[in-house]
Amino acid sequence: MNAQRKAVNNNCLGWAARDPSGILSPYEFSRRDVGDEDVRIRITHCGICYADILWTRNKTGHTKYPIVPGHEIVGVVEEVGTNVNGIKVGDRLGVGTFVNSCRDCEYCEEKLENHCSKGAVHTFDAVDVDGSITKGGYSTFIVVDHRYCHRIPENYPLESAAPLLCAGITVYTPMIRHKMNQPGKSLGVIGLGGLGHLAVKFGKAFGLKVTVFSTSINKKEEALSLLGADKFVVSSDEEEMKALAGSLDFIIDTASGNHPFDPYMKVLKTGGVLALVGYPGELKLDSLYLLRGMKTISGSATGGTKMRQEMLDFCAANKIYPEIEKVPIQYVNEALERLIKRDVKYRFVIDIENSLK
Amino acid sequence: MNAQRKAVNNNCLGWAARDPSGILSPYEFSRRDVGDEDVRIRITHCGICYADILWTRNKTGHTKYPIVPGHEIVGVVEEVGTNVNGIKVGDRLGVGTFVNSCRDCEYCEEKLENHCSKGAVHTFDAVDVDGSITKGGYSTFIVVDHRYCHRIPENYPLESAAPLLCAGITVYTPMIRHKMNQPGKSLGVIGLGGLGHLAVKFGKAFGLKVTVFSTSINKKEEALSLLGADKFVVSSDEEEMKALAGSLDFIIDTASGNHPFDPYMKVLKTGGVLALVGYPGELKLDSLYLLRGMKTISGSATGGTKMRQEMLDFCAANKIYPEIEKVPIQYVNEALERLIKRDVKYRFVIDIENSLK
Repeated sequence: MNAQRKAVNNNCLGWAARDPSGILSPYEFSRRDVGDEDVRIRITHCGICYADILWTRNKTGHTKYPIVPGHEIVGVVEEVGTNVNGIKVGDRLGVGTFVNSCRDCEYCEEKLENHCSKGAVHTFDAVDVDGSITKGGYSTFIVVDHRYCHRIPENYPLESAAPLLCAGITVYTPMIRHKMNQPGKSLGVIGLGGLGHLAVKFGKAFGLKVTVFSTSINKKEEALSLLGADKFVVSSDEEEMKALAGSLDFIIDTASGNHPFDPYMKVLKTGGVLALVGYPGELKLDSLYLLRGMKTISGSATGGTKMRQEMLDFCAANKIYPEIEKVPIQYVNEALERLIKRDVKYRFVIDIENSLK
Repeated sequence: MNAQRKAVNNNCLGWAARDPSGILSPYEFSRRDVGDEDVRIRITHCGICYADILWTRNKTGHTKYPIVPGHEIVGVVEEVGTNVNGIKVGDRLGVGTFVNSCRDCEYCEEKLENHCSKGAVHTFDAVDVDGSITKGGYSTFIVVDHRYCHRIPENYPLESAAPLLCAGITVYTPMIRHKMNQPGKSLGVIGLGGLGHLAVKFGKAFGLKVTVFSTSINKKEEALSLLGADKFVVSSDEEEMKALAGSLDFIIDTASGNHPFDPYMKVLKTGGVLALVGYPGELKLDSLYLLRGMKTISGSATGGTKMRQEMLDFCAANKIYPEIEKVPIQYVNEALERLIKRDVKYRFVIDIENSLK
């Protein structure tokens, strides 16, 4: 047995939803013992992602209650498995949207485990390889195979790291894949929520000229002054949109819910790429806007472990911090309601260590 | 004056449509004198493209009658401008979908003139830089700036070269751009007309495993035996489509007219690309099929002069010949009607030199 291993009881305190009302309340459950490859992490913070709403309210249609959501998890190691090297008690780690995968397919080998051929095991509400149902980060601790954990860079605040584990990687991955990190190029960001505001920050760190598209003028001031965007356009303003025709190299679309695509395709340059990371439901556009100017629409969902570590290190090196509103676990139901109304600047983070006891 | 230049009269005989009936009949007109940068080409063959129907019948809404269609033009040089080097009388040249462009923008500089910022000048029905209306290849000769002409490789039949100038480059360009030329990868081809049958031939020459998707079983035998496809799937066969789920690296979609996209997105592998070269009108799909597996839809229309010459040389080197049905100009109205009914294997080529006098 590893010298670092210490006896702990396996009673975990979390907050769970019991039915499709999605209302969360305290819930006690046990986690597995720390296996040879596992680490046990005392959770300090957990970000609130829109997925938490979809799952707790059974919008996906297959929620298994009770469900403990949360997949933007950070904390401090309190136990380490026998075969785990390079991680010790007291280390600061993060866990994202998945906690297991087949580890054998071409995608797992490339550390693109989110595309695992057998399906990555989601951090909550999924059947793990041992048959248990995974439970997420609205809880006091978690036991995870160390392969799926990330080192939070030194001096980087844990509470800031939480939103990077889902919101951050979701925008960072397609930005790298589609070469949106070329200084001097122009980037459009559709939607200014948890994902969008990080896309703006990444864009500026990459040296891009960033234009924010929003349905409302309300966020203009903050987009420009706080987030550092170069331009802010209300997407319903046809004149402003027309003035931008053929001007952007890339667009990252973080908006969820149905919205038109033709206006954004027109705004792209020849060869331009729109990366889709929100879920707009049905995508509908005139194919002419793809044909003319050889334009591209490409989807992306979360990211793999290699890119995730790279992004965390990039954020630390470039002093990129998500804008967060820290809330106690007791506020979580209200926070989820506010998230539905998009009333958050720009990501809720639950202060687990100070409120869940 | 260039020694190669010789006196010719400028009376050109063509076939033109006079009104939106699109019915073509003999029409005499004059072409410009050969300028310093021009060549005059005696047209031997001209392929029939679906665009010829759209324009002669005013489906685009801005046809200027009378219109002489045809943008898959090959022939023999009969006069050469003073400043033209490297081309001599008797050389075999081809002209594609455009005959001019601004020559100054970033796209013209990269020889992607089809994306010229000021708009490439289409081979017919367009306003040329001198104010004249361009007239296409259903005619005895054409005068073109040599920049927009291509050398037909030695021993490559002129009649075979004609369809490459539009159908060929239209599928070749996105195949190269999206790296569909990696041996061992898998390619799906939607639609088996002028474009699709060339995509199959290119795919096999690139060393790909090629699956043809068609709405009808009729072309199965030919797809496999004549064109060399590895697999033929009737796209309405849900069982067969299901069996292919997640199996293809690329799809090239040559189908025009509305058709579903979800079934094809499901057939793509993680990271797969569907290149759109037909015009399906409105593109409609569940965005989930893009998000999951980071899939891509990308449009493309024709190609530039650099890629066009490369493709001609590739076809000659790899003995790739379009399947054609050679017809006299007097048959052109019937040929257009048959093309509408997709009753052609696989491209009509007008035998201009032997029928238009």
